This record gives sequence, structure tokens and C-alpha cells, in this order.
Amino acid sequence: MDADECTQQVTDFAYNVFSQACPSRATLEHVTGRWGSLTLGALSGGALRFNELRRHVDGVSEKMLSQTLHALERNGLVHREARPTNPPHVEYELTPLGREVTDQVMSLIRCVEGRMDDVLAARARYDAR
Amino acid sequence: MDADECTQQVTDFAYNVFSQACPSRATLEHVTGRWGSLTLGALSGGALRFNELRRHVDGVSEKMLSQTLHALERNGLVHREARPTNPPHVEYELTPLGREVTDQVMSLIRCVEGRMDDVLAARARYDAR
Repeated sequence: MDADECTQQVTDFAYNVFSQACPSRATLEHVTGRWGSLTLGALSGGALRFNELRRHVDGVSEKMLSQTLHALERNGLVHREARPTNPPHVEYELTPLGREVTDQVMSLIRCVEGRMDDVLAARARYDAR
Repeated sequence: MDADECTQQVTDFAYNVFSQACPSRATLEHVTGRWGSLTLGALSGGALRFNELRRHVDGVSEKMLSQTLHALERNGLVHREARPTNPPHVEYELTPLGREVTDQVMSLIRCVEGRMDDVLAARARYDAR
């Protein structure tokens, strides 16, 4: 299934994120969550080393980035490539599955960025009430 | 700009979620975050009262749902309608802006739900290492 098909499937999945017991709930939290979406987004441009990722995802701590990458790797979205050089060279990149999910995350990010003028206007109206 | 245009805008926004200082970072966290995406998704079917929302978003506490709705309302994504009846009738619904963002959130949710077989297979491989 390519990314296009992914967006076209609409209903009747065996999984339901709205149910707390469904394993898809945890995966959704990993790909959104505080750092998941930004980490996936940063990798959308290609493989990065840990410290490069840290610079891209402004504000993430070493510990949180490490935990985030671990969860994304476990869920099959990110591949960790360690080349046996000295010193070892470790890179993180999206898997094909991770790329599909990240395409959706990036659409959401672009939508939010593109509508921030309206969001900020709404905030100003709300705070003035 | 309608939802379609929203997805087509790709670059050159004044806002950048990857920068911690950008206000779009906080908005992205509200629309993703632990309960934001599920609350928006639950409202994608139409207006709901608070207790109806609580049932849809399985596992959310009263306090967290209240905070989530507050943030979504402040960011202009959710409208709170209080009819002056006795007892008061309060409903929450997506604004046009909220609907655009929620369309993207639902695409992401459907993508995750649709690929959970692969995610679970990846988890099993990872845990068996």
C-alpha cells in the first residue's frame, strides 16, 4: 500500500484509536505526542545523526529524543543504522512505513503553519473577552 | 482557503513548528498532544456535549478534556455554544478552521489505524531481538 492508498482508506479498520485498549492508540501517541511529530518531520528530509536531529528539533532534550527515537523504531517507523566504523557512525532514517505516516504528519504541520495567522487572531479575540 | 488549499501549501510560511519560539509549535502540540487529536477527531462527526465527548474519547478524564477543549477553543479550532436554557445546554463543535485542521488529523489517524498490522509486526520483531 503506498502513501496515496493510505490516505484513501477511510473506514472499517480492525483498529480504533478512540478505544483506549486498542494498540493503535499508543502508536498514534508516539507519532504525535510532544516530540514524535517533530522527530518524524525532521527525518522527512533524509537520514540524520542524533546530534543533527537534536538541532532540527529545537528544544528537545537528549533523553526525550532518545526515548522518542526508541519508540518510533520499535513501531517500525524509524530505522537505526549503525555502521561499524571507529568511532561508530549511527544514523536514523524513516522506513517506508514511517514515510507514509510522516507524509500525513507533514500535511498536518503545513496546515497548522499555514493557518497560524487565523489561530493567532482567534487567540487574541479569546484573550480579550 | 479551503481544506484542499491547506494541504497544497507546502513551503515558505512565516511560521515554523521546528523552532521552539514559534507560536505554531504550541498550536501543533494542542492539535496533536495526548488528547487534542482524539478530541478533534471525535468532533469531526458533528457537535457534541461534554459528556458525549468524554464517552467518545475513551480514557480521558474530566479535567484533561476540559483543559483540551479550552486550548482548542482559544486557538480558534472549537466553538463552545452555550444555550441559555435551564439547565444550560452546552455543545462543542469544530469551527471552519478547526475542520480544516481536523481533516488532516483524521487522515493521520486513518493512516495509523490502516497500518497497524505492520506496526504490530515491527513491534514483535523489535521485542524479539
